[in-house]
Amino acid sequence: MDPYVIQMNGKSPLPSVLDVPVNIGGRSSMPGKAKGRKARWSVKPSEMSKNTFNPIRAIVDSMKVKPNPDKTMISLSIGDPTVFGNLPTDPEVIQAMKDALDSGKYNGYAPSIGYLSSREEIASYYHCPEAPLEAKDVILTSGCSQAIELCLAVLANPGQNILVPRPGFSLYRTLAESMGIEIKLYNLLPEKSWEIDLKQLESLIDEKTACLIVNNPSNPCGSVFSRSHLQKILAVAARQCVPILADEIYGDMVFSDSKFEPLATLSSNVPILSCGGLAKRWLVPGWRLGWILIHDRRDIFGNEIRDGLVKLSQRILGPCTIVQGALKSILRRTPQEFYHNTLSFLKSNADLCYGALAAIPGLRPVRPSGAMYLMVEIEMEHFPEFENDVDFTERLVAEQSVHCLPATCFEYPNFFRVVITVPEVMMLEACSRIQEFCEQHYHCAEGSQEECDK
Amino acid sequence: MDPYVIQMNGKSPLPSVLDVPVNIGGRSSMPGKAKGRKARWSVKPSEMSKNTFNPIRAIVDSMKVKPNPDKTMISLSIGDPTVFGNLPTDPEVIQAMKDALDSGKYNGYAPSIGYLSSREEIASYYHCPEAPLEAKDVILTSGCSQAIELCLAVLANPGQNILVPRPGFSLYRTLAESMGIEIKLYNLLPEKSWEIDLKQLESLIDEKTACLIVNNPSNPCGSVFSRSHLQKILAVAARQCVPILADEIYGDMVFSDSKFEPLATLSSNVPILSCGGLAKRWLVPGWRLGWILIHDRRDIFGNEIRDGLVKLSQRILGPCTIVQGALKSILRRTPQEFYHNTLSFLKSNADLCYGALAAIPGLRPVRPSGAMYLMVEIEMEHFPEFENDVDFTERLVAEQSVHCLPATCFEYPNFFRVVITVPEVMMLEACSRIQEFCEQHYHCAEGSQEECDK
Repeated sequence: MDPYVIQMNGKSPLPSVLDVPVNIGGRSSMPGKAKGRKARWSVKPSEMSKNTFNPIRAIVDSMKVKPNPDKTMISLSIGDPTVFGNLPTDPEVIQAMKDALDSGKYNGYAPSIGYLSSREEIASYYHCPEAPLEAKDVILTSGCSQAIELCLAVLANPGQNILVPRPGFSLYRTLAESMGIEIKLYNLLPEKSWEIDLKQLESLIDEKTACLIVNNPSNPCGSVFSRSHLQKILAVAARQCVPILADEIYGDMVFSDSKFEPLATLSSNVPILSCGGLAKRWLVPGWRLGWILIHDRRDIFGNEIRDGLVKLSQRILGPCTIVQGALKSILRRTPQEFYHNTLSFLKSNADLCYGALAAIPGLRPVRPSGAMYLMVEIEMEHFPEFENDVDFTERLVAEQSVHCLPATCFEYPNFFRVVITVPEVMMLEACSRIQEFCEQHYHCAEGSQEECDK
Repeated sequence: MDPYVIQMNGKSPLPSVLDVPVNIGGRSSMPGKAKGRKARWSVKPSEMSKNTFNPIRAIVDSMKVKPNPDKTMISLSIGDPTVFGNLPTDPEVIQAMKDALDSGKYNGYAPSIGYLSSREEIASYYHCPEAPLEAKDVILTSGCSQAIELCLAVLANPGQNILVPRPGFSLYRTLAESMGIEIKLYNLLPEKSWEIDLKQLESLIDEKTACLIVNNPSNPCGSVFSRSHLQKILAVAARQCVPILADEIYGDMVFSDSKFEPLATLSSNVPILSCGGLAKRWLVPGWRLGWILIHDRRDIFGNEIRDGLVKLSQRILGPCTIVQGALKSILRRTPQEFYHNTLSFLKSNADLCYGALAAIPGLRPVRPSGAMYLMVEIEMEHFPEFENDVDFTERLVAEQSVHCLPATCFEYPNFFRVVITVPEVMMLEACSRIQEFCEQHYHCAEGSQEECDK
């Protein structure tokens, strides 16, 4: 029998479903079996997919606890400023999208690195004399996540390592490990407003170090590095000849008492790939428009790294063209007031939250200076009922229906992260429930009765 | 000197640029050099980026030829139906996007595999009794390119191989090779309307074969497989226990004399990942909304492959949420007339182009049945001036300002691909210029004077 001729069952000339015998776990008795192949079904997921590990999902999904049915849930866990409806994007941003749709000009394929005109807009928006930018220095991506992915993919081979902040955004680990790149964690110091422990950072660098990730302003810390601290980080990178991936997705999102300094403006030496996007500052994280700014004034990356980024961008062909088409108006027409109002709100909520939590025995919040987060230390010795931060936050959900992410998600046990984008009343209610929770579970640590009497 | 203290140059307390000495190609004399690391700049692109090779770009970019200045350029090279403005998307599609923007509901992060409601819409749109679908079987992606990327990334490890059509879409090679996956080319037969050479296909399968890519309707061939041919393909896959990646981005884009049969409707045995998207049928390729439909009724992929796809989707977090939010209305409200008009136009242009080119001595077009392309064989023995299809199409640009892609881009020398989405007058003008070009360069092959006298 010619195995390529289909046998029809019975009279139907076109059987609707072809029922070829399937062998699961057995050997095929059909003809035409190819050389060396065991003809049985065994479809296994790739090593890459098995190595793609999202710590937040793993930890949160394993928290099986249910909220207290008598209290409405307040989620302070998701870094998405849009979920409560209190922080809409600006009407000009929406109008820019409609105009892009109406123009009919942005439905086709863009170049995989983005339209030239859109890249020119980003370049001129972020250009400054200390860190000049042209369109050729800009690559548009499907969100800041893809920007980071492309940067890691071009800079590091499997077996190399990258330096990642602890506490830090879990995506760095997820992306690196899926590509077989090792991560080495450098410490941020809560007692120094989450500055980097530079000596420890430098001690991690070896001949396999492909890049240093600097996240400023920081998720999850809400910290903003000073100019002098950034200069010290640059000095380490320059001394060790390690290029920097600057995750600046929260760039310009700093409170009035701080200043955001784009890392590239402080050095003409160190080659820097700065990643950003519309997600946070324009409050549209779902739109997936990110970018890479290539700062390489000493030509250390050279054409090779640029070409590598272009080639990698061709694998999935860039971000949605409507958002790209809207970019010019978004950057030019969004009123300053919009940015100002967002930051005033965040600052006010940060102050409220910090003040309330600082007054709770057993908790030690670290005051943020930007971004959308605040980290809180749990003095675990005063909460002996709880094993760790995961346990603590789990019980906080069960008893008070307040959900904060345990900082184990950020490689930093015994802290939790609070998202400060929620409406003010909700922020206050959450803090008061956290207070109640802590009061109910607070125990004096041995030998510190004095403190408990306060 | 403590290397972590920045020395200020002169009086300025805050130097605007930190000028740390840079060593290019030399050794650092600075303190703090880490163990074993040569402190000099040497930033090289990764192997992955070097292995990311886009044949179309490589071939087209190396065609340095300029068009004939006396003739306006007609590009029949880009598979983008929007470039000439004659094939706009439907107004309902644009309205759906505006409604999604106005709702304010689609600015935040969606789940990385897409909103549940959007996945439900896709599932019910493509559900049929022979190939049932639920939301859990749908993963939304950043265009069909990312859908294909995720499927390959979950099914194959470096060192494994995948079976890819020749001629075929170059992205399969680009993606596979960037991941260290080998491609094995199986032949499509022009004399059999581009059906697969099934024996040769089956002979390629070995123990390292991770999946078979079936592209139907085909880019670049414009061919549409019959039900019985699809059944034979399924029989090979079932016999050899090879899962299928069905690239069905041109699904439903077939002319009235053909029928598109989704591969999964013809088998309940073979596990199939079907990739599709809005790009072609809805004429919005730039919007980057694609999907994977998981067909696995015998549970051969099982939860492992599903989980693997979910985990991989978390690396860059899915497609633009506005397009996701618009999906329901796009699928429900786009009038049948829109699809019908697109296909009538394509069919009419296909007939025009086929008829015109079939009359040209030295060319042998293959009549298409769907998609947006037509392949033309060049009888190279009649064009001895030209070395190959690249040379032929290059000279066609230089002399006639008509740009077709040489099919070497699709691993298929001595053919070229014509895009049939251009306006009718342009299609006719292009064909007449191709005729003039061929007449000017046609030579009788030796021993066939008779034919030349015709």
